[in-house]
Amino acid sequence: MNQPPTDRTRVRRGATNAQYDTATLHAIIDDAYLCHIAFSDGKSTHCIPTASWREGDYLYIHGSNGSRMVKRLLDSECCVTITHLDGLVLARSAFNHSMNYRSAMIYGVFEVVEGEAARRAMEAFMEKLVPGRQAEVRPGSDKEYAATTVLRISLAEAACKVRTGGPNDDEEDLSWPVWAGVLPWARTPLPPQTADDCTLPIPDYVVQLHR
Amino acid sequence: MNQPPTDRTRVRRGATNAQYDTATLHAIIDDAYLCHIAFSDGKSTHCIPTASWREGDYLYIHGSNGSRMVKRLLDSECCVTITHLDGLVLARSAFNHSMNYRSAMIYGVFEVVEGEAARRAMEAFMEKLVPGRQAEVRPGSDKEYAATTVLRISLAEAACKVRTGGPNDDEEDLSWPVWAGVLPWARTPLPPQTADDCTLPIPDYVVQLHR
Repeated sequence: MNQPPTDRTRVRRGATNAQYDTATLHAIIDDAYLCHIAFSDGKSTHCIPTASWREGDYLYIHGSNGSRMVKRLLDSECCVTITHLDGLVLARSAFNHSMNYRSAMIYGVFEVVEGEAARRAMEAFMEKLVPGRQAEVRPGSDKEYAATTVLRISLAEAACKVRTGGPNDDEEDLSWPVWAGVLPWARTPLPPQTADDCTLPIPDYVVQLHR
Repeated sequence: MNQPPTDRTRVRRGATNAQYDTATLHAIIDDAYLCHIAFSDGKSTHCIPTASWREGDYLYIHGSNGSRMVKRLLDSECCVTITHLDGLVLARSAFNHSMNYRSAMIYGVFEVVEGEAARRAMEAFMEKLVPGRQAEVRPGSDKEYAATTVLRISLAEAACKVRTGGPNDDEEDLSWPVWAGVLPWARTPLPPQTADDCTLPIPDYVVQLHR
């Protein structure tokens, strides 16, 4: 990032919404809990959602050693996309209706993260999901780590598209007698649900997340 | 759907979360405003987010006539995926942490929707986005419709994966002294934002959406 886009990452449609800076890319990834990964197995193209997180200039995922996706991602190019839908944009004309969103696309090949680096990455994942929880849970065993593959992909070839703000109506539609504006959304935490077989109180770090 | 899965749609990982019934598929699509589409252009595989809606046993999208995606989708197989992330599942052990989600994957080839059917589809899209608005807005012109391609893909080859409920801890971890449960989320509407150049009151059908 902070580099000119490649042929794959140069945005053609809605090019005025394109952004290629690192801060925007990192913010979009950090606000997401999952990504969609497109890859081919030689016969079909697949689009699989999976949990993701970021450390430095890499996006991380994990999976079971034997999974088809893990095998395929290690020997072929893929495209990782993250999209946040922030609201509906209601214009005066039907065709100028739009959506506000933040999306990131990353091209490249995943690589395996080995040994201690894999353990640190999984701990960073927990810290991202629920800050403060890692120290409390039963840590991963050697067997669990051995059955899991941690993968990462460089963020070097990436592009973002971001739309914000109100409707862009054609000049001649501005007097059309209809309300225009934005219907924004947010991902809102609902009250934590304690497991049926758990008698412990909800910890502070969970209560904080809910605020 | 309501048919045995194909080789592509049979879920391998977490197969107990697989669902192949039409009602589940329709509900996942209908609760989404966008999908991610994976397709190949012969050189690279792409994963592009785009607005989507359903009518009957088809998922619909639209795009500008000249877009790369529209051209590619008409002459190649693709995979359309929709994912709703419903919450974090906090187990006693690090490795039994999970997420609650609803996802749908559809394989096939898009086809063009022509003429009056395209107009009806775009009106159905508006009705899905904001029920009641279609009658108020400046309708699409012949020129606007001519510049837009409406595409649809059959839902015949599809599979869903759904995870709900609390953590599944290993028996020996149940006494680990840490809170366990679910942190659910919801997509919550925020107050409507009237466009700067609009002096009309917020209509009832928008107020209703916000409730």
